Amino acid sequence: MEEVKALIRDIPDFPKPGIIFKDITPVLSNGKVFKKLTDRLRDRYQDKKIDVVLGIEARGFIFGASLAYALGAGLAIVRKPGKLPYQTFQESYELEYGVDSIEIHKDAILEGQRILIIDDVLATGGTASAAVKLVRNNFQVDIVETVFLIELCFLNGKEKLGDTDVFSLITY
Amino acid sequence: MEEVKALIRDIPDFPKPGIIFKDITPVLSNGKVFKKLTDRLRDRYQDKKIDVVLGIEARGFIFGASLAYALGAGLAIVRKPGKLPYQTFQESYELEYGVDSIEIHKDAILEGQRILIIDDVLATGGTASAAVKLVRNNFQVDIVETVFLIELCFLNGKEKLGDTDVFSLITY
Repeated sequence: MEEVKALIRDIPDFPKPGIIFKDITPVLSNGKVFKKLTDRLRDRYQDKKIDVVLGIEARGFIFGASLAYALGAGLAIVRKPGKLPYQTFQESYELEYGVDSIEIHKDAILEGQRILIIDDVLATGGTASAAVKLVRNNFQVDIVETVFLIELCFLNGKEKLGDTDVFSLITY
Repeated sequence: MEEVKALIRDIPDFPKPGIIFKDITPVLSNGKVFKKLTDRLRDRYQDKKIDVVLGIEARGFIFGASLAYALGAGLAIVRKPGKLPYQTFQESYELEYGVDSIEIHKDAILEGQRILIIDDVLATGGTASAAVKLVRNNFQVDIVETVFLIELCFLNGKEKLGDTDVFSLITY
């Protein structure tokens, strides 16, 4: 996945001073590379009987949607509070300063389904671990793996995901 | 597309009293139907030499990503202000009360490319017409069509899109 890595752009001081943001939009703009990375994920999961790919707002929707389509699976979406119109389950998680939460529709996943959770970047793991808890606390399903385009290993986000299997296409 | 229509759920009074929200999440959850609707769009555009699909935040990312992958095209994203990390072009549009705006990265599209703009719902057309202007005012490209999963015809959003070709899978 060197072609993907070559297109990822560092943006210093975004969204706040001291943070170097990994901008994946140049990867998306390149149709060939976007197809290749989606195919790479499809190849990894096509024999894993994935029923639903769970995409985390908002860039997780992008990789989740293309992968769900490639696998013939459904797509469930996890959003910030107030965005989902139907009945939801909620999970809160701590930020550096304060608390945030995420929601999922109560009927987004069915009992017994095999789920793949996806997001663009694994950083501190706050959102991803909340998504895992959101699924585990409310649905009788099997989380096959949690997958990221990018993992920032020095932030140890993987530790927050406990015994959930984690796969990252690119690591820093 | 009767199978798609059968899965769309009406949510009364969301996001505010008096509005009936068209909830498309049950369409996404159903892998077979999600695949079928993406295939339908792929069939429509596969001979149109689309270079980039432009998805409007946030549900436009979903249909944009699966379609871009199906076509082997790139995906460009249009977001609310402050979300995109790199240099942007901006376009403002009027809401019922006040003004909102959308942004695109300055390098999201290249000169001469053939663009397809996509979102989930065409309602009053405010966001979609702003997206068309955002592209036309800043890039020398060809907008092949603006495509929606759902068009709420009684809101006349199509009029705001002027001479841009519009295609909607489902109309109400």
